Amino acid sequence: MKLWGGRFEEGSSALLERFNASITFDKKLYRYDILGSLAHAKMLHSIKILNDKEYADICHGLQEIESEISNGEFTFNISDEDIHMAIESALTQKIGQAGKKLHTARSRNDQVALDFRMYVLDSNYNIRQQILELIEVIITLAKSHTKTLMPGMTHLQHAQPINFGFHLVAWCCALKRDIERLESSFVRNNFMPLGSGALAGTPYETDREMIARELGFKAPTLNAMDSVSDRDFALDVLYDLAMLGMHISRIAEELVLWSSYEFKFITISDKYATGSSIMPQKKNPDVPELVRGKSGRLYGNLISLLVVMKSLPLAYNKDTQEDKEPVFDSVENITISLEILKETLKTLTINKDNMLKACKIGHLSATDLADFLVKTSNIPFRQAHHITGKIVAYAESKHCDISDLSEDEIIGLDPTIKSGIKEVLDIAHSMESRKSLGGTSSTQTMQQICTLETWLQSTKDTIPNTKPTYTQHISTSNNPSK
Amino acid sequence: MKLWGGRFEEGSSALLERFNASITFDKKLYRYDILGSLAHAKMLHSIKILNDKEYADICHGLQEIESEISNGEFTFNISDEDIHMAIESALTQKIGQAGKKLHTARSRNDQVALDFRMYVLDSNYNIRQQILELIEVIITLAKSHTKTLMPGMTHLQHAQPINFGFHLVAWCCALKRDIERLESSFVRNNFMPLGSGALAGTPYETDREMIARELGFKAPTLNAMDSVSDRDFALDVLYDLAMLGMHISRIAEELVLWSSYEFKFITISDKYATGSSIMPQKKNPDVPELVRGKSGRLYGNLISLLVVMKSLPLAYNKDTQEDKEPVFDSVENITISLEILKETLKTLTINKDNMLKACKIGHLSATDLADFLVKTSNIPFRQAHHITGKIVAYAESKHCDISDLSEDEIIGLDPTIKSGIKEVLDIAHSMESRKSLGGTSSTQTMQQICTLETWLQSTKDTIPNTKPTYTQHISTSNNPSK
Amino acid sequence: MKLWGGRFEEGSSALLERFNASITFDKKLYRYDILGSLAHAKMLHSIKILNDKEYADICHGLQEIESEISNGEFTFNISDEDIHMAIESALTQKIGQAGKKLHTARSRNDQVALDFRMYVLDSNYNIRQQILELIEVIITLAKSHTKTLMPGMTHLQHAQPINFGFHLVAWCCALKRDIERLESSFVRNNFMPLGSGALAGTPYETDREMIARELGFKAPTLNAMDSVSDRDFALDVLYDLAMLGMHISRIAEELVLWSSYEFKFITISDKYATGSSIMPQKKNPDVPELVRGKSGRLYGNLISLLVVMKSLPLAYNKDTQEDKEPVFDSVENITISLEILKETLKTLTINKDNMLKACKIGHLSATDLADFLVKTSNIPFRQAHHITGKIVAYAESKHCDISDLSEDEIIGLDPTIKSGIKEVLDIAHSMESRKSLGGTSSTQTMQQICTLETWLQSTKDTIPNTKPTYTQHISTSNNPSK
Amino acid sequence: MKLWGGRFEEGSSALLERFNASITFDKKLYRYDILGSLAHAKMLHSIKILNDKEYADICHGLQEIESEISNGEFTFNISDEDIHMAIESALTQKIGQAGKKLHTARSRNDQVALDFRMYVLDSNYNIRQQILELIEVIITLAKSHTKTLMPGMTHLQHAQPINFGFHLVAWCCALKRDIERLESSFVRNNFMPLGSGALAGTPYETDREMIARELGFKAPTLNAMDSVSDRDFALDVLYDLAMLGMHISRIAEELVLWSSYEFKFITISDKYATGSSIMPQKKNPDVPELVRGKSGRLYGNLISLLVVMKSLPLAYNKDTQEDKEPVFDSVENITISLEILKETLKTLTINKDNMLKACKIGHLSATDLADFLVKTSNIPFRQAHHITGKIVAYAESKHCDISDLSEDEIIGLDPTIKSGIKEVLDIAHSMESRKSLGGTSSTQTMQQICTLETWLQSTKDTIPNTKPTYTQHISTSNNPSK
Repeated sequence: MKLWGGRFEEGSSALLERFNASITFDKKLYRYDILGSLAHAKMLHSIKILNDKEYADICHGLQEIESEISNGEFTFNISDEDIHMAIESALTQKIGQAGKKLHTARSRNDQVALDFRMYVLDSNYNIRQQILELIEVIITLAKSHTKTLMPGMTHLQHAQPINFGFHLVAWCCALKRDIERLESSFVRNNFMPLGSGALAGTPYETDREMIARELGFKAPTLNAMDSVSDRDFALDVLYDLAMLGMHISRIAEELVLWSSYEFKFITISDKYATGSSIMPQKKNPDVPELVRGKSGRLYGNLISLLVVMKSLPLAYNKDTQEDKEPVFDSVENITISLEILKETLKTLTINKDNMLKACKIGHLSATDLADFLVKTSNIPFRQAHHITGKIVAYAESKHCDISDLSEDEIIGLDPTIKSGIKEVLDIAHSMESRKSLGGTSSTQTMQQICTLETWLQSTKDTIPNTKPTYTQHISTSNNPSK
Repeated sequence: MKLWGGRFEEGSSALLERFNASITFDKKLYRYDILGSLAHAKMLHSIKILNDKEYADICHGLQEIESEISNGEFTFNISDEDIHMAIESALTQKIGQAGKKLHTARSRNDQVALDFRMYVLDSNYNIRQQILELIEVIITLAKSHTKTLMPGMTHLQHAQPINFGFHLVAWCCALKRDIERLESSFVRNNFMPLGSGALAGTPYETDREMIARELGFKAPTLNAMDSVSDRDFALDVLYDLAMLGMHISRIAEELVLWSSYEFKFITISDKYATGSSIMPQKKNPDVPELVRGKSGRLYGNLISLLVVMKSLPLAYNKDTQEDKEPVFDSVENITISLEILKETLKTLTINKDNMLKACKIGHLSATDLADFLVKTSNIPFRQAHHITGKIVAYAESKHCDISDLSEDEIIGLDPTIKSGIKEVLDIAHSMESRKSLGGTSSTQTMQQICTLETWLQSTKDTIPNTKPTYTQHISTSNNPSK
Repeated sequence: MKLWGGRFEEGSSALLERFNASITFDKKLYRYDILGSLAHAKMLHSIKILNDKEYADICHGLQEIESEISNGEFTFNISDEDIHMAIESALTQKIGQAGKKLHTARSRNDQVALDFRMYVLDSNYNIRQQILELIEVIITLAKSHTKTLMPGMTHLQHAQPINFGFHLVAWCCALKRDIERLESSFVRNNFMPLGSGALAGTPYETDREMIARELGFKAPTLNAMDSVSDRDFALDVLYDLAMLGMHISRIAEELVLWSSYEFKFITISDKYATGSSIMPQKKNPDVPELVRGKSGRLYGNLISLLVVMKSLPLAYNKDTQEDKEPVFDSVENITISLEILKETLKTLTINKDNMLKACKIGHLSATDLADFLVKTSNIPFRQAHHITGKIVAYAESKHCDISDLSEDEIIGLDPTIKSGIKEVLDIAHSMESRKSLGGTSSTQTMQQICTLETWLQSTKDTIPNTKPTYTQHISTSNNPSK
Repeated sequence: MKLWGGRFEEGSSALLERFNASITFDKKLYRYDILGSLAHAKMLHSIKILNDKEYADICHGLQEIESEISNGEFTFNISDEDIHMAIESALTQKIGQAGKKLHTARSRNDQVALDFRMYVLDSNYNIRQQILELIEVIITLAKSHTKTLMPGMTHLQHAQPINFGFHLVAWCCALKRDIERLESSFVRNNFMPLGSGALAGTPYETDREMIARELGFKAPTLNAMDSVSDRDFALDVLYDLAMLGMHISRIAEELVLWSSYEFKFITISDKYATGSSIMPQKKNPDVPELVRGKSGRLYGNLISLLVVMKSLPLAYNKDTQEDKEPVFDSVENITISLEILKETLKTLTINKDNMLKACKIGHLSATDLADFLVKTSNIPFRQAHHITGKIVAYAESKHCDISDLSEDEIIGLDPTIKSGIKEVLDIAHSMESRKSLGGTSSTQTMQQICTLETWLQSTKDTIPNTKPTYTQHISTSNNPSK
């Protein structure tokens, strides 16, 4: 007989059990469920609903169950429906009646809202840590390449010379926003829903603030109905991870391009590349390809839950059970993607010579020429642009780069051109000349790196303060449900 | 050492293995892989690449492996990367060198394209069977309710009286299109990719037509490069299932509404309903709610793969490995949803009295009144509409339905109204009067049911012809990877 | 000849012009473009690239153009490609050479990044204002209904009695998170990209901080390459609006349900309802239906841009031009949706009697009965749940609500039941008993309303401080491009 | 007063009118609406609801309106709500009472279902024509490049030598499936909904088969309720176009890559390329970039309507009004994308020399070496793969391609290698050796081209038969609403 079966004349069909049960995936929440129950029991004890003995039994029983699950000794049963029921029945089996008292003043609706929120906030915290580590690796790489020339591209066409460090800083800027985005959704959702009951609160004189304090939340949620209906916390993390996935898909695309025979800007370590079962010469950039491809599921997971929530009337509906799998999937895939991307970057070989060679293709200093004309001949930029176009066409006809033309040759092409132009066309000079705030010159790049490092250090210093208290009890290393 | 490791100086990192491997999910394809290999071996034997002994050994070895996996005796190892490698190394361990010869004239690129396509077409076939069964259940229900009056709704407002059978026919029409959609994607994708090699075909004198015949495909694919790059077959089924999921989310929404206290049009069987852990009186329509919610993942899975494939250059890229999980997920969730929806409908109680009572609310015969005015007084519909509006307002002021007004009362409200109006306002009369082709009258409804039944029978008769030959070797019942 | 045509031998095809041009939609940005150019000119003047005369001419010319566009006197030409080019050529026609100088030290890449970001931040601000107004309307309604009983639902089944004000507070909680979400994306993206040039900064000694200050941004962006590649600011607002759209689709769903004949909890004002062209009696809740339906495009627009950005290499690519239309569409549709939802709620009639009647259906006080048993008989909740189930079944067999049973009748059903039960079963008593923090009792509801009002007031007080300075120059009222 | 306003006491608010109206976008349907009305009128005349004079007046009036709209002389008014109302009121103004009779036996619900379906089927037909033209251009290109060597790639790494024509055939295969997908959704949705009334049919003795015949549909729809609730026809075309957009995003990606300085395989004509406003040397592949980016909106539009339809109860709901804009947007964007892609390919320069040079990089004939070992030394492929890996490593150490090694050098590296190996390593030999069905050899490629040409010709021959009759009356050239 189901715990909820009082008014039912017929039992559930086996098919219903299989369809309805979430235990196959929500067992991943077991530690959060137990921590939540411990905090709830402590509160029930403080308001005298549990006596000392009952409270002690519950604590002891829950800890035993926690250790059984951790050690893989716990048998999950589909008829338990979900992790909450599974743990509650095990507890009652262990300690009798007191176990049944634990569900006083709560409902599965607020219990699952609590457990899942703990998982989401904990994952949010962990992923921010991972991004910090990734940024650190990129910054280290950037610092040693602020003078490594490479062709900056727009439209995948050579545009202007930049240094490789500058390009890497651009990556960090996007990842920094990812951390900020996660931080703000952490803060926005760091509220404790337990004690909301089914939808309307409870008639017990509960102390929800105590539970919030106990578990390290900022405060209890404001309204019971919203607390059991709300899945913004899950959607926020799905969006944050979709954005992060989009950013690393762009990094991945560049790694794929740069490791092609055509570019050869980088060489991925054998440890993070793969071969072909049929073509013996192949070395494939599987890691960035797969990182890139995983954007698909990250977007898909976001859409999944947005669709589930669309036009659901309040309060809890069963549809909402579909909230967990997409979040688990996004969290796990991002976690391993960040880890392997970090290692791949750490072990990357940068082919500076090939980058430099590429800078001699595509007239990268054409803008410099135009700017030089503006400055020295006092003509409008639009006109300088036009003259430069002609010189580029001339160089193309000679099959060379404009930086290879002689000063005389150039001056002969248009009367407005003054001497001094040769220096301006030099690629390194061009890169170093872009000294405007945020520009690519090596000093500017270094300054950007400094700004990032300052931010990185302060974020690393303060992030532990935001760690949910309950995570201190959770060591994910031996999580059997992974 | 990896099978592909010839040119590599360093081994793969453990992290790469974990990230890259698809064995954790693609083991689900084992039967298709083995059937494909058996067909490939037969062809290699026919063109003398395998001698009799080698061919016999391979067949025997593969059958052994098939049975080991079925019985759960096979150990999957993450270092095998994928199901293809896992089976190939097991085979080589069993039968030695001959096992290694099996990979002649094929590549993992075309092998996975074959295996996955077999899974997709097989699932397509099975799901069509399931929809047929669901339609059959609905038609049976519809046939016994062609005179059961209920309020037809638009905008969730009572609109015109219909019969319940007519409403159920509308459900069937959508499900019929689902079958047709699946049929056409089956036909469009029923081509055999093996023998395409990595991307360019092979130098062996293979007989791809023989393999296609052997496995029951219509023909080999046309172009090797397309064969390894194409994932249309997977996207098509994802779309087909998203549409199916959308249709059943609409059915589910109606079941939820109709089983609410406000409607009470139906009662879901205790076997397919659930209770609440906190509210003892609750009986919740979890089945339709969850069916409705699953539209989220079905949409999400479609988007996932569309995103993966966006702007991928030809031919195979590792991103494509992300193709399988969304398809597995959609297939499995639709399969159980269709099954439980069918059972829920089979065991449904229809509360005809409540439906009838609801017909007396909302002036359902107002359109009939307007149509009567058009016919009897030769006034334009727009004017009749306006007069009817006034009569409705009058009934509202009297807190009754227009069908409860007396003929005199009505005639007194507007001089254009002729006698005979009372009959026209009768709900059953109204329903039966809609005799236009496709209309709700019980004879029309019956005719629609007949058309559906004819189509259903002919589809049931012909569907086995479309069954892929290879599925005859596959009994899904004891699939260990489920 | 195109402004960029220097090196081209052939002109563009007319088809390319039509395909490539964004002027048809980005003209909506004209005011932002002009404000950005004014700030840029001021900076160029301060660093002596523009002399006094040139600067004065540019300011005058731009203001003239602004007024021409506002008044609909400006002719947009598809050969101008985009709003930036259109304004620049108009300026040059007006004031000659000086107009051409304005493009010094900037590129279209950073210019469009600036203009579009200004639009996005401005819209972010305006939408937050609108949500505040909507919340205010809902709170006003809530305050007068803290004692209006209605059935609280889960699974669309009557669950526990609540008051209508409490339900409305749940709506506000979601909308409050929408404001917080918009606030945090405003802060995260409030940085000024101009001066980044094409991708690498410029060789001019620009003062980007001056431009940032001038336009009211917090600071210039950090890295030029990121500045022209980043579209996070647009994605963030698309997500924020998708979430807002999801929330109001849930409110809309409830309005549709509640205005059905089955519920009749509310009546939508004739001013915000529509009729049927064929069914004279119909009154349709078109407003909430359309609000609900608009979630589709809000989700779609988010996915659109996520897909565009997936795996784009740095820096600017033409794909990014696809960023604007989805944002314009989401902003405009949310703006009108919020406006009309507010008016619809303002003019809503609440049918308290119907809500109350509905409370007598579905044994809403069953949980109270269970809780009473726990408290008075010291039995575990699970056992109390079971006893209550039996009493519910008894009431069902008598076709009445448990609150209609007599005390003797109930006590007769189970020996554990103590006297006092009758009061507990009263619906109003039940609602008022849920006094836990966040619960539905009228005092708790009032306290939640107070908390919301305090927050609302402080947000209204501080929001003007976050208003972008540039919006002070922009009156959207006479925007011709709307 | 609204046409539907009979029972309303208050008029609509101006805000509601603006929010609710679809006239701003659905006016695009005017020709379909008029054709549908002409067919409806003919039927009403045939069943004597319209007399000769009324019918003649209606026909004349509608034709006048059609010509006024075409010539831009018609004033659309937001208070008309939609194109159906706009045309009906104009008609009534012109011809009086008879105009009002036209709405007999139909509703806006079935009218919009008809008009929109006509638009969708017509667009389906036109887009298939466009794809055929695109395929024709690609085949022409392919035929002249069946011996043009290029490196076939997997993972964006050089894999095996192919010919360029073979690669182009792969493009055609995907586009061929697009045509087949559109064909099957055309057939599946080619049914006529008019006469379904609001949801339940009508009491008039209509002849729906006559209307279907008149407009060129296969048959009337089966069930009235489904007819007004169904939007599968719109979703199908949105999916078909999303798939088509995905395919051309892959082509576009390759065009972008190939026109980069790194590849230089192709040169896009100046007519279909653009420059930079700041970098005078740039030539950007805007066309393929924008084609690639448009996949975003094509996916987004599909999701939009899927979300709208999720869990909508039958029959018509206002949400469904959101169906048209995404379809219009997808159709228009695909139409211009196909047109410009065709022109870009027509005017493309193929840099055969660069393709050939690239073939000497990456040991493209390594698989041939392994296959040679298998054949000549009778070793398993896996072992041959390993030996080849060693030879590749040797060539890498000598900074040359394996095809540049001498026979002696190679034989010295492993005792199993037989003479004859040198020829096998030749790139052209390698390409030509892949003679398996579907392989890259020039004869196989030519055969694939022949198969495609046969299909193309037969499709071109038969496609006019599928043209909806009504499109013969529609010349899109002077459509004012574009």
